[in-house]
Amino acid sequence: MSSIIVTNGTVVTPSSKGMKIVENGAVAIEGSQIEAVGRTSEIESKFSAEIEIDATGKAILPGFVDAHIHTPLSLFRGLAQDVPESEWMTKAIDPLANKMTKKAAIIGSKLTVIEGLRAGTTCFCDYATSMADLVKNVYLVAGVRAHVCATINEVGTKKEGKGILYPFDHALGERRLKENIELIKKWHGAENGRITCLFGPQAADMLSEELLLQVRDAAIEHDLPIHMHVAQGERERRQMMERYGKSTVNYLDEIGYLDDRLIAVHCHDTTKKELSLLAKKNVRMVGCPGSIGMIDGIVPPLASFKKLGGVAGLGSDQCPPDGHNMFMEAKYASILSKTEHKDPTALPAWDVLRMVTIGGAMCHGLHRDIGSIEAGKKADLILVDMERPNLVPIVQQPIRNIIPNLILHASGSEVTTAIIDGKIVLQNGNITTMNENAILREAQRIASKLAEAAAEGFLKAGS
Amino acid sequence: MSSIIVTNGTVVTPSSKGMKIVENGAVAIEGSQIEAVGRTSEIESKFSAEIEIDATGKAILPGFVDAHIHTPLSLFRGLAQDVPESEWMTKAIDPLANKMTKKAAIIGSKLTVIEGLRAGTTCFCDYATSMADLVKNVYLVAGVRAHVCATINEVGTKKEGKGILYPFDHALGERRLKENIELIKKWHGAENGRITCLFGPQAADMLSEELLLQVRDAAIEHDLPIHMHVAQGERERRQMMERYGKSTVNYLDEIGYLDDRLIAVHCHDTTKKELSLLAKKNVRMVGCPGSIGMIDGIVPPLASFKKLGGVAGLGSDQCPPDGHNMFMEAKYASILSKTEHKDPTALPAWDVLRMVTIGGAMCHGLHRDIGSIEAGKKADLILVDMERPNLVPIVQQPIRNIIPNLILHASGSEVTTAIIDGKIVLQNGNITTMNENAILREAQRIASKLAEAAAEGFLKAGS
Repeated sequence: MSSIIVTNGTVVTPSSKGMKIVENGAVAIEGSQIEAVGRTSEIESKFSAEIEIDATGKAILPGFVDAHIHTPLSLFRGLAQDVPESEWMTKAIDPLANKMTKKAAIIGSKLTVIEGLRAGTTCFCDYATSMADLVKNVYLVAGVRAHVCATINEVGTKKEGKGILYPFDHALGERRLKENIELIKKWHGAENGRITCLFGPQAADMLSEELLLQVRDAAIEHDLPIHMHVAQGERERRQMMERYGKSTVNYLDEIGYLDDRLIAVHCHDTTKKELSLLAKKNVRMVGCPGSIGMIDGIVPPLASFKKLGGVAGLGSDQCPPDGHNMFMEAKYASILSKTEHKDPTALPAWDVLRMVTIGGAMCHGLHRDIGSIEAGKKADLILVDMERPNLVPIVQQPIRNIIPNLILHASGSEVTTAIIDGKIVLQNGNITTMNENAILREAQRIASKLAEAAAEGFLKAGS
Repeated sequence: MSSIIVTNGTVVTPSSKGMKIVENGAVAIEGSQIEAVGRTSEIESKFSAEIEIDATGKAILPGFVDAHIHTPLSLFRGLAQDVPESEWMTKAIDPLANKMTKKAAIIGSKLTVIEGLRAGTTCFCDYATSMADLVKNVYLVAGVRAHVCATINEVGTKKEGKGILYPFDHALGERRLKENIELIKKWHGAENGRITCLFGPQAADMLSEELLLQVRDAAIEHDLPIHMHVAQGERERRQMMERYGKSTVNYLDEIGYLDDRLIAVHCHDTTKKELSLLAKKNVRMVGCPGSIGMIDGIVPPLASFKKLGGVAGLGSDQCPPDGHNMFMEAKYASILSKTEHKDPTALPAWDVLRMVTIGGAMCHGLHRDIGSIEAGKKADLILVDMERPNLVPIVQQPIRNIIPNLILHASGSEVTTAIIDGKIVLQNGNITTMNENAILREAQRIASKLAEAAAEGFLKAGS
């Protein structure tokens, strides 16, 4: 007797090579795990279950992995848009961020998890300070998979000016590393492994070499990955060149950071040679096309990195267009890469579908558990209604269009059901674990107050 | 006594300068026209109506103008994706297009109108052969606004090879022009002006000079605009250079085509000087960022054209990502322009909101009737639910985020209601004029047959 059987859908999942499609497919789930995948007739003959979900007209996909996300920041949506890159942080976001409270961070995070889950994200690789608060107040309740770190940095309160290096505050750095280690001790593996942890050094320019190496030692000791912003842009480059006379990638290579433990987010400010070095050293890359395209006018070098043989995933980062929605990130990755390279074959549908599933899982070292629909893996599945106007028709011959239609033509609202760790967390488009309306109302209330409180900061920043 | 009053919403509309926002706003509609716009209290004190629509928590926007669309082609969705530009037409689309029947074109068009309407498009500037069929079978029934032309070209059946000019078939050209004129005679102004017509010469390389001039004379005689693909790319350039020794823009200038009667679609293959000439001559430009980005890896020069003072609109063209959805086109226009120019201030939210409303209307000479919410204009309105997770929070001070949230963060599924020409055509997300499910089923059935019929064509084309 299984717990859940999903029947009569089209299973679309990455496999060890390319993409596997099972028409009239079914998935049997036992407890938190996938028991079997196959044709409906075959599964129905072997398994029966308490709950049977009829997926007629739907695609059955692995739940999406959002490989880099700052969940509290949805509260700032639309408040720092269309501004010059040089002013984005100082004049647009900082006045708001300075007024962020613990309570606001939690409600922002809940809002983000709602957006993501509704659009098929089942695993949130969250990156924030005070992460223990989010695990306790958001992830335990929401029932989604979370892979989390606490931001580690040691940049003091004194801001850099032109030609001025960040002053490092070693006591702060030690405190932050300790927080990350405590997070791991308390939560890594909790909830049947639904909560897992890793290390989050913010960026090579925001930690002293000493602390960077301490983080690395701790990561090796705990055998966990390192989730880090790498080569984000000009400000970082200026700091690295002045302090070490080297670019971020060359510096990280020298201190022994470049291997398959490192998840390098962004990588915009890299030369071809550096990108190639990252790929060769098995560093995993995460690109955040929607957020970074809107804020910086920059396209992450995903297509180049893939061409070099690298493993890549996608993240929604903060306040991306359309909410935290991996369907949209997949689409942005594809269209932005095509226009960047003036090549319509760049990042085809199947490739970006891999990025939001198994690719993201491989980035974070979670691929033995999630990222594809296979017997023995965790039961993280989503159902996508293929009978929406924007996904019709689905043709099977002479050419199959289900993957382009799913990935290049869906917009996320087609997700009807999400099962995470064997539990139904989204059912007929409704979240079963949280009171969505109450959270939206509270987010609206707190965001309005927070924005009002930031008014003075905006005036001071001259925006 | 008005026909309809919409109350308690936030009116967001372009005005003669910039954007007008009326909080707690209302719109009174009498027959097919907007009678008054103002604060709810003010409108309620002056008007009463048979139908009152409570727009609490919603934004009230002018219906969107899709300024360039080929409605029948949704049947090919996902079947010509991720292919090299040089093979897109010959190997990917042609085998399907060659099997297109009248019946298939009509069902494809219905599917497209459903997609567009659900995402807020109220005016479809459709471009196809056999347009009279679509007017009769689709637009009369659907209740949406249509501004249509019949494709005029005279390219014979013999295809061009490398260095070979298209042979012109003058009899075909005459026939097509006659069809366009008959379309105008029969339908221009029909249904209380809900159906209007214009001229559709396909492209400068696809009509002889003689026919192009005939079209222009006819357009002047009927005082109607000319809707034409201009400077699409390499194939067109090759034809123009070989036949006339000139680029399309320079050629059109010489034969007197460049003025405010011309709606120039695409304009990708233009020099800065040519683009500047188009703007100076008051030619209107339409860009189709989603479709062209996916198919060609090209970004329409919308940002440059706007900087030169040009008037621009957006079109969804054919099989764009996410269905024919002007929210998505607005977003693609913005993000693709930002990354193209590496400038996050390029095409801000308010600017692309103008493009999908008054900009599109101005392109097509429809701005006296539609494109903004003003007393005396046609009652073409949409309501957008602002209480969806991806649009929360809406903040009013110290910075307003309603326009970025509407335009950069909505994805189209937030549209609940559409009123066109004073009639409710979309109500609580349901289309009132068409049987959507029956159309989707029929589209699925016909597309499958059509794709099977194209199998041989695909084999021959070597795709």
